[in-house]
Amino acid sequence: DGSLFLIAGPCVLESEPHARMLADEIQRITDDLKIPYIFKASYDKANRTSIHSFRGPGLVEGCRVLRAISESTGLPVLTDVHTPDDCARVSDALGDSEIVLQIPAFLCRQTDLLIAAAKTGRPVNVKKGQFVAPADMKHAVQKLHDSGNDRVFLTERGASFGYNNLVVDMRSLPVMRGFAPVVFDGTHSVQTPSAGNGVSGGQPEFIPVLARAAVAAGIDGIFLEVHNNPAEAKSDGANALKLDHLKPLLEQLLAIHAAIA
Amino acid sequence: DGSLFLIAGPCVLESEPHARMLADEIQRITDDLKIPYIFKASYDKANRTSIHSFRGPGLVEGCRVLRAISESTGLPVLTDVHTPDDCARVSDALGDSEIVLQIPAFLCRQTDLLIAAAKTGRPVNVKKGQFVAPADMKHAVQKLHDSGNDRVFLTERGASFGYNNLVVDMRSLPVMRGFAPVVFDGTHSVQTPSAGNGVSGGQPEFIPVLARAAVAAGIDGIFLEVHNNPAEAKSDGANALKLDHLKPLLEQLLAIHAAIA
Amino acid sequence: DGSLFLIAGPCVLESEPHARMLADEIQRITDDLKIPYIFKASYDKANRTSIHSFRGPGLVEGCRVLRAISESTGLPVLTDVHTPDDCARVSDALGDSEIVLQIPAFLCRQTDLLIAAAKTGRPVNVKKGQFVAPADMKHAVQKLHDSGNDRVFLTERGASFGYNNLVVDMRSLPVMRGFAPVVFDGTHSVQTPSAGNGVSGGQPEFIPVLARAAVAAGIDGIFLEVHNNPAEAKSDGANALKLDHLKPLLEQLLAIHAAIA
Amino acid sequence: DGSLFLIAGPCVLESEPHARMLADEIQRITDDLKIPYIFKASYDKANRTSIHSFRGPGLVEGCRVLRAISESTGLPVLTDVHTPDDCARVSDALGDSEIVLQIPAFLCRQTDLLIAAAKTGRPVNVKKGQFVAPADMKHAVQKLHDSGNDRVFLTERGASFGYNNLVVDMRSLPVMRGFAPVVFDGTHSVQTPSAGNGVSGGQPEFIPVLARAAVAAGIDGIFLEVHNNPAEAKSDGANALKLDHLKPLLEQLLAIHAAIA
Repeated sequence: DGSLFLIAGPCVLESEPHARMLADEIQRITDDLKIPYIFKASYDKANRTSIHSFRGPGLVEGCRVLRAISESTGLPVLTDVHTPDDCARVSDALGDSEIVLQIPAFLCRQTDLLIAAAKTGRPVNVKKGQFVAPADMKHAVQKLHDSGNDRVFLTERGASFGYNNLVVDMRSLPVMRGFAPVVFDGTHSVQTPSAGNGVSGGQPEFIPVLARAAVAAGIDGIFLEVHNNPAEAKSDGANALKLDHLKPLLEQLLAIHAAIA
Repeated sequence: DGSLFLIAGPCVLESEPHARMLADEIQRITDDLKIPYIFKASYDKANRTSIHSFRGPGLVEGCRVLRAISESTGLPVLTDVHTPDDCARVSDALGDSEIVLQIPAFLCRQTDLLIAAAKTGRPVNVKKGQFVAPADMKHAVQKLHDSGNDRVFLTERGASFGYNNLVVDMRSLPVMRGFAPVVFDGTHSVQTPSAGNGVSGGQPEFIPVLARAAVAAGIDGIFLEVHNNPAEAKSDGANALKLDHLKPLLEQLLAIHAAIA
Repeated sequence: DGSLFLIAGPCVLESEPHARMLADEIQRITDDLKIPYIFKASYDKANRTSIHSFRGPGLVEGCRVLRAISESTGLPVLTDVHTPDDCARVSDALGDSEIVLQIPAFLCRQTDLLIAAAKTGRPVNVKKGQFVAPADMKHAVQKLHDSGNDRVFLTERGASFGYNNLVVDMRSLPVMRGFAPVVFDGTHSVQTPSAGNGVSGGQPEFIPVLARAAVAAGIDGIFLEVHNNPAEAKSDGANALKLDHLKPLLEQLLAIHAAIA
Repeated sequence: DGSLFLIAGPCVLESEPHARMLADEIQRITDDLKIPYIFKASYDKANRTSIHSFRGPGLVEGCRVLRAISESTGLPVLTDVHTPDDCARVSDALGDSEIVLQIPAFLCRQTDLLIAAAKTGRPVNVKKGQFVAPADMKHAVQKLHDSGNDRVFLTERGASFGYNNLVVDMRSLPVMRGFAPVVFDGTHSVQTPSAGNGVSGGQPEFIPVLARAAVAAGIDGIFLEVHNNPAEAKSDGANALKLDHLKPLLEQLLAIHAAIA
């Protein structure tokens, strides 16, 4: 209906109480602002730079937590899938809860994963690979359509720009909206991919800048990894938005969204 | 004072009546919208892809036209300088008219040109080279300051992104605002540099997208090459904004600018 | 021992007789030139641009063919794995034949895939992602080492350079040789990723140029997809090397390799 | 005649004795190796990152030194020109000495500079801009041809690759050889443009890697800035080749050049 929706939550499920706290806090804000909200958390970080980094509770326990949060809050949830087998397992584990399956950016060309996600009948969010031209995302959408699933959206999270840096090409947003609704991921877009010391860094000071720009360029939804204490986050803290900053940022984004309506 | 200013006009001075017509039409619009306006036109296109392309009336005749327009409209004007010698000649030719000297992007590291522009005492607008990191524009600003001129602003017009393509990195805007007021050039940013057939192409459909995004990211001024009939423009028609589209675009930009105030 | 080795074969297993013919032809050439040779073919192309493209015979039939070829020729073989489960299945299917498991470039950061490949005890070739800085490949190597496998090598196949284009940064070769032996993939490096029409294109005229340059820069092995008739290849024909051109190219590469010894 | 030629010398003329010493030392090496040699030095560094950096002795004194060196050694010399006026002044100052006028990379699209250089009748070396696609260098060559000068060559020195980094695309070499003889600049190609602290850095460890690769890819000449003590060089020391390393490198390049003949 033209309103901007939000996908937000921690990068990874750190614990059930922590995830629940974030879901509750963010839901309070989005209720206030009348923003449709999808809770986001990963049960497994499958491509950490180092093998020793925290990965999450795994599929079974993670889906249990996501379902519990969905049931108590009434929120739809979103989580990543990494192999074709994950798709039905996650979908089944969520039961009657609404869930969006997310295809990670590195995996956006893995045909079997896209087909398996499509065949669950759940909505699918495909993140654009850092190595993919916006116009080529029509092929990802086509793979999902050809597998019988039209509930697709696409997410921009930056393109490779030299080494250890990403750039957001705002032209990608209208290009991809020609294929499906488009979400802008304001937190991974400020990542500085693994800067050689075994962890990816970030430039969180640019989250509001890029999020404002993307809303003004024209998008359907905004994706933000949020943490009450980014310095303590178990994954991607370097590019997370501080929970305290979420409400003022959303207010600004809504004002911009209204200005271009 | 926080209001967004506009730099606009034809890419090149095609004829005095044509330039005057554009100045008048744009001034009517900016008066309506209460936008401070600087008339922009080049007297010489010094880096056309082909030696056979139209270059303009030259410095002497071009400055005569710019001064005449400035005197009859009361507008400040902006034009490019290409060699150190040009700077004093242009400044002198403009007399009491207000003029901004613009350093072309390819020339933004030419020390003598920056010094000569600075020494005129006129405001100087330095376009960021397509090959320059935003943080490095502090060196250009420093060269002007060291030459005794503090009336400096910087313009973003895209960065090299592979071959024959530019990308606008919205992070550059807050980075460069740390050094000087920042203008976003919405029309050169959609250029597709000389695509092999001897002329540079463009994607004018992205002008509003990028301009909206830049205003939302936060800028001080907007730069737009405008033409009543881009298909007939004698330079850069492929990425010019059609005059008819200027007012609605500016209205949208003002609304966004107000939304983030 | 300082000699250059070759990994070569068709992109995908088109048929057993076709694969066998290529293995035999290439083996004849490498025997002549005294080049250690690993036969390469994929049983499944898991990330084709379009869902309708030919993917190959699948894991079971593909591994049967690879083993048969290995047994009759005595050649080691190399093939791609796409999910953690594939790794043990492929390794087991090959029995006593020597096999190298190859991690596709898009999947080079998928921790579980690297671990599963490592745990087979087979040598593992990790292709550098188009989105990965050369220095960061040490993390991929570390994941394999940490999983108990030291038989690792790394392959360069180009980095994202704007849209639909790759560039080979020759600096990557010595950087990655700091971590493991390095192979240069001369055919995927000339790919022009999915150029919008549903198939990836290529610039095979640059295969010899880049291969010569890489050998001169310093590498341990060379990877080439070879086809008797690239125009009829069922996958990646646009960037395959014509079989007829293989021997003269290898002769040139050996001469360069000797020149820098 | 198919032999590789060398353009080498200090980045900037530091003093007449220093320049002469380098010319003599390099000439001894190239005589030994039977490599045609052009002495290179700049009289003015016109685009230093900082206004406070050393720029050189200026045109008049610089040309005097270049001529004196040319007359005593019999070597042709090469130097940069920065404005149209420089061209005839430099050409005249060199008298009967052979000189190549070099167009700096940032200035490779400045039409008047190309025309003025062409009109001297001297050979012209155009460096490819970091922002220019190789195929587009045909326009620079055409501008020189159209101005009556066919003694043109083109130099590769890297392309913008994200911020503060360059990449050498070896495909550019055969592409540009379609227009003119091609030189590879092995020292500026390892520059890391102004890394924010007011000076450009470099990665001299990659000079031999890239030079070997370029010779193997196929070039006509090699360009190297050489210094007896790079740490003390007054410009671009961070990416200069140490004089001691020149002879072994040239021997390797000649061996590669012979291997591909």
